[in-house]
Amino acid sequence: MSYVLHGYFRSSAAFRVRIALALKGIDAQQIYHHLRHGEQRSPDYLALNPQGLVPALEADGTVLTQSLAIIEYLDETVPGAALLPPDPTARARVRAIAQIVACDIHPIDNLRVLNYLRHDLAQDEATVARWYNHWIASGFEAIEQRLAEPQTGRFVHGDSPTLADICLVPQVFNAANFKLDLSPFPRIRAIFDHAMALPAFANSAPQQQPDAE
Amino acid sequence: MSYVLHGYFRSSAAFRVRIALALKGIDAQQIYHHLRHGEQRSPDYLALNPQGLVPALEADGTVLTQSLAIIEYLDETVPGAALLPPDPTARARVRAIAQIVACDIHPIDNLRVLNYLRHDLAQDEATVARWYNHWIASGFEAIEQRLAEPQTGRFVHGDSPTLADICLVPQVFNAANFKLDLSPFPRIRAIFDHAMALPAFANSAPQQQPDAE
Repeated sequence: MSYVLHGYFRSSAAFRVRIALALKGIDAQQIYHHLRHGEQRSPDYLALNPQGLVPALEADGTVLTQSLAIIEYLDETVPGAALLPPDPTARARVRAIAQIVACDIHPIDNLRVLNYLRHDLAQDEATVARWYNHWIASGFEAIEQRLAEPQTGRFVHGDSPTLADICLVPQVFNAANFKLDLSPFPRIRAIFDHAMALPAFANSAPQQQPDAE
Repeated sequence: MSYVLHGYFRSSAAFRVRIALALKGIDAQQIYHHLRHGEQRSPDYLALNPQGLVPALEADGTVLTQSLAIIEYLDETVPGAALLPPDPTARARVRAIAQIVACDIHPIDNLRVLNYLRHDLAQDEATVARWYNHWIASGFEAIEQRLAEPQTGRFVHGDSPTLADICLVPQVFNAANFKLDLSPFPRIRAIFDHAMALPAFANSAPQQQPDAE
């Protein structure tokens, strides 16, 4: 199986897929599209993913889109480290915490939404930063409470990383970029530290990508 | 197994879970929380779901949150109609199209985000409506293109409803509420019509709920 990941160093959805590939031990070819230069709207990329968003993963030529769908596909098709636990209730917990990031935080703080606020609604950077941090803080408060549950270990669910950690860690990077105070979230910070001690997370970080600025 | 669904007639994420329960033939007890009156922030509901969002599903007392996680749980634990196809590539396609709705449209147009625009950013209703329709139109354009793929049948993937239809139909209801012109999306409209011919979709519609206004 050959894999090509289309991403961007700063995209946290692409960051998620980089972590999943690394946890599965897959050495994918990486192609970077500069979102701030609009490269995701080039005719070549739109032919591959008409939505013009990253990430997209080519798996033996089949194009997969949407980071969570890609990661579940990898988990279903590639042996090795399991990214979801086997029990349905545990899977539901992991997916729910992943989706607090992927549905309740990240989409609202995505670059295209921030640009709509800036350009279409003429909001200044201070207002954009308040918006950004409002949605992260609200989602992180929910996650911090879930992390008090007994299923939490060194990672969100038990002692090995799952889909939930894969979503959480890139979101912590984003929070740091916008200088969100993380002191109210000690459980999130502990999991972040455990994750970043693993090469699969550390090597997938934005600054480690060849397109990093 | 006993199920209690916490929802709100107008919540499209709750609507998704109502459809999934109906497709699985589950007769769940329904408890409605009036989001516009803030009932999802009551101490009783916050004790159940600290995030203060609907839906939440109690399955024999275990509380599950996040509509997509709930629906995948139902699919993994309840026999009957499959909400995801068996093949991993097909599952990835269904999940990706579901996530265009659940990650790229719905979160940005959620009530709490619209209220932030109205109250924190002092935007008028015309601006809020433009915002709303911008994100639906952008996502629907992507879905309409995916529906040209040969895997599409009477439904998003083949001839029976999946997670993708479960996400798409409530979003079409939302689009209609904000008077989005659906004429550029004939494939979405055809699938909507096929779905609404099924009692599982029709009976789950907002107007059919006892808390409908």
